[in-house]
Amino acid sequence: MAVNADDFFKAAELDKPRNTKASKVGSNVTLINVMQLPGLNTLGISLARIDYAPLGENPPHTHPRATEILTVLEGTLYVGFVTSNPNQLFAKVLNKGDVFVFPQGLIHFQFNPDHYKPAVAIAGLSSQNPGVITIANAVFGSKPPISDDVLAKAFQVEKGTIDWLQAQFWENNHY
Amino acid sequence: MAVNADDFFKAAELDKPRNTKASKVGSNVTLINVMQLPGLNTLGISLARIDYAPLGENPPHTHPRATEILTVLEGTLYVGFVTSNPNQLFAKVLNKGDVFVFPQGLIHFQFNPDHYKPAVAIAGLSSQNPGVITIANAVFGSKPPISDDVLAKAFQVEKGTIDWLQAQFWENNHY
Amino acid sequence: MAVNADDFFKAAELDKPRNTKASKVGSNVTLINVMQLPGLNTLGISLARIDYAPLGENPPHTHPRATEILTVLEGTLYVGFVTSNPNQLFAKVLNKGDVFVFPQGLIHFQFNPDHYKPAVAIAGLSSQNPGVITIANAVFGSKPPISDDVLAKAFQVEKGTIDWLQAQFWENNHY
Amino acid sequence: MAVNADDFFKAAELDKPRNTKASKVGSNVTLINVMQLPGLNTLGISLARIDYAPLGENPPHTHPRATEILTVLEGTLYVGFVTSNPNQLFAKVLNKGDVFVFPQGLIHFQFNPDHYKPAVAIAGLSSQNPGVITIANAVFGSKPPISDDVLAKAFQVEKGTIDWLQAQFWENNHY
Amino acid sequence: MAVNADDFFKAAELDKPRNTKASKVGSNVTLINVMQLPGLNTLGISLARIDYAPLGENPPHTHPRATEILTVLEGTLYVGFVTSNPNQLFAKVLNKGDVFVFPQGLIHFQFNPDHYKPAVAIAGLSSQNPGVITIANAVFGSKPPISDDVLAKAFQVEKGTIDWLQAQFWENNHY
Amino acid sequence: MAVNADDFFKAAELDKPRNTKASKVGSNVTLINVMQLPGLNTLGISLARIDYAPLGENPPHTHPRATEILTVLEGTLYVGFVTSNPNQLFAKVLNKGDVFVFPQGLIHFQFNPDHYKPAVAIAGLSSQNPGVITIANAVFGSKPPISDDVLAKAFQVEKGTIDWLQAQFWENNHY
Repeated sequence: MAVNADDFFKAAELDKPRNTKASKVGSNVTLINVMQLPGLNTLGISLARIDYAPLGENPPHTHPRATEILTVLEGTLYVGFVTSNPNQLFAKVLNKGDVFVFPQGLIHFQFNPDHYKPAVAIAGLSSQNPGVITIANAVFGSKPPISDDVLAKAFQVEKGTIDWLQAQFWENNHY
Repeated sequence: MAVNADDFFKAAELDKPRNTKASKVGSNVTLINVMQLPGLNTLGISLARIDYAPLGENPPHTHPRATEILTVLEGTLYVGFVTSNPNQLFAKVLNKGDVFVFPQGLIHFQFNPDHYKPAVAIAGLSSQNPGVITIANAVFGSKPPISDDVLAKAFQVEKGTIDWLQAQFWENNHY
Repeated sequence: MAVNADDFFKAAELDKPRNTKASKVGSNVTLINVMQLPGLNTLGISLARIDYAPLGENPPHTHPRATEILTVLEGTLYVGFVTSNPNQLFAKVLNKGDVFVFPQGLIHFQFNPDHYKPAVAIAGLSSQNPGVITIANAVFGSKPPISDDVLAKAFQVEKGTIDWLQAQFWENNHY
Repeated sequence: MAVNADDFFKAAELDKPRNTKASKVGSNVTLINVMQLPGLNTLGISLARIDYAPLGENPPHTHPRATEILTVLEGTLYVGFVTSNPNQLFAKVLNKGDVFVFPQGLIHFQFNPDHYKPAVAIAGLSSQNPGVITIANAVFGSKPPISDDVLAKAFQVEKGTIDWLQAQFWENNHY
Repeated sequence: MAVNADDFFKAAELDKPRNTKASKVGSNVTLINVMQLPGLNTLGISLARIDYAPLGENPPHTHPRATEILTVLEGTLYVGFVTSNPNQLFAKVLNKGDVFVFPQGLIHFQFNPDHYKPAVAIAGLSSQNPGVITIANAVFGSKPPISDDVLAKAFQVEKGTIDWLQAQFWENNHY
Repeated sequence: MAVNADDFFKAAELDKPRNTKASKVGSNVTLINVMQLPGLNTLGISLARIDYAPLGENPPHTHPRATEILTVLEGTLYVGFVTSNPNQLFAKVLNKGDVFVFPQGLIHFQFNPDHYKPAVAIAGLSSQNPGVITIANAVFGSKPPISDDVLAKAFQVEKGTIDWLQAQFWENNHY
């Protein structure tokens, strides 16, 4: 068997700032999961670096198969998650060195409230392939789109509003 | 030990139509989980009946801890779920007797496209306590609310639009 | 990858009554597991419809890899399971809409006590492939047969009685 | 915390022959599970010694929560298990030092075919509390008894035969 | 599918004494895992016989994927394991028939304190492939060797001492 | 229930360098597990910061219940783990931003080869309570000590050498 140390290694450059300009929401997630690092197979963990522009955010999303534990390397983050039954928000402002947990499958976000300085976080995730569902993109930007009848009723808005939102998110999902 | 057959039993009246009038989205979910049925403890399963008014829907939501398998007892349902990476919609029209699967943690919905007839479904869920996160309610109706800065950027709309949506959903979450 | 919505869908016709005449015990189980529905793979759940003739039964059996949660759609069922250490029977009469749980691996049964009306149930099972071991068939109808020395001692009867029972069940197992 | 080495220890005397005379089937199972050995808690394993009289057997039974791996210390055993779907018997004669596996939840047995010599086996089980359901006892000797209507149909015999079998097994289950 | 009873069977001769002379530490472990017995696949258990020469030992080691439950068939064993945080030794002298548990991943050992008589044990392990890491061999005998800088500091000894230990263990690991 | 955001938060100061002077091996591990952060309960993950003095090391150790994924924040690390059967060393030099995986239960280490500069790493671990067994301390510094008969044979050295090693490590374990 040709397994060797390189199967457990990735020159991921997690120390290097990522470009947050290309993102409409001002963030960039670099996830090292089993696709990048084959040695993670069956081992139930992955690691991510997240960069936030000033006022940037990692918008509300869920990981269908993982809990996330995060620490702030640089800057400040306003973070939170919403529980199920009832929908209670657990939120907190994190400074450098603080640690926060986002339980499996719950909607959560991180927002950089600073107008001038970027922020950086490192996160561990309890799956070799956590998955990510960015709520706005999945709901309004899926391909093909969810019927606007469904979404208009869910969000209690006119179908025209849904159509406008879908047009906006459509371009974000290239595959 | 006083455990007996009644701990494994619930007179849940799952045969009886539920009221869908009180719901803005025209649906009503009756979930039998470990809180209703103590005998489910450690056993990894629960059961639900879902009623849909004409044009009613079970709006986009996730179960953070369960996969769902559903069959249609009455009427017709347009159902779907959105995958992670990329956000692809897998959708289908279900008729009476059809079966569909919604994988763990993915956003999914069921919509009754009929203008006149109600619909009914039965679903099994792979957790004694699946949890449910209705996307619109969790995002716009959490208590306390998620900051409108965060949501305006996530949905790429004005903060005024977010404030209006939040006002609408606030009343749905009583706890 | 060619995965699409049809991998998560089965036109199972679970709304249609099944034939219970061909069965000596007057029942018919339609199980939708991962063999029928490939999308269930790794997801830990399956669904079944069970039809019972008047006085028909789903005879004592176990699922080696699943708990079962059942609701009655039509008719009445006398149901029960037997615990291990000691062998206590937990039994109950279920009417339409009632829910009951059969814990993983325990011997359980459903019996339709009505002389004239059929019964129907829907059940969720906590495995993509629950397996089923119908006690009488497995013990007396296995191929090749279990030695009648073994069975005579286990059931505390003459070997002739075992041979007669085995002849009866042999024809039920075609493979 | 007062945990110490004795919580992980049991003077179980597994080297000593057990009495097989008190048993109608000529066997005696000494199981060391979490009730005897608290240190097994959460650790997913237990151990058993099984003694077989000449022509004695460990009659058909299942462990709802464990696979079993067995080795013969003394004598000869005819062993087997029955698969689900279809009910195929996998059987083998084991001599001293041989090893055999009984997969989780499947009906299995061991029989000592020797008319004069006893047999002894040691088995590992993949649960801290495997449970045991001896088929004949659970089906015919449960308390309260399973209705003879249910059993007569399941075993395709007269109700009188069932009543006679139940009388026989009733005395075996004291609780 | 050609699966049959032989896939669940191994003529392992676990009743036969093993040679302990070839081992510097005076022991010999015969492990029946999924490589020897394909039927163990997915079933989470394996079985071992361990032979100890007079004053022989199964030296400090861990099983990265299994808890072990052991019983003494012949002789006497001084056994123990070390907890994590803090490093407390839980030790016990076992006589024939005694049972002891070594929790998953903890360093443990068995030592035969008798100058003249051998000892024998049987153990169940809670994995189809428990793995074994003999501490001295893994630390001083790995191929390629761990740098003597690393080991000198870890063991608080001169590098020359490490080099001498490595030379000694190098020959034990052939692959 | 009084659960709130603070149960998921820890002001852990993971951005601050730790003192590596008090450690004989020149390292300091700050682990945020379920004892520090109650919200991690049942969620299967924890996070650590590790500081290394120049030529300092996190000496050979195992986590009995977790895989570890590590990234270098500052400096350079020579890292490795040893497989079971055979004892093969998988080692690598890591620079800032590189990622490496240490599979569950395997002996591993990190060493800072730089004579002048410290190093820092962040690691995710796949358990809410991974446990840690530092090999040298557990083997030579346990309380009470492992018998020097056992260790002399395991390490193939004189008992005097073992006694000397034990004296050295004894003071490191205070409890």
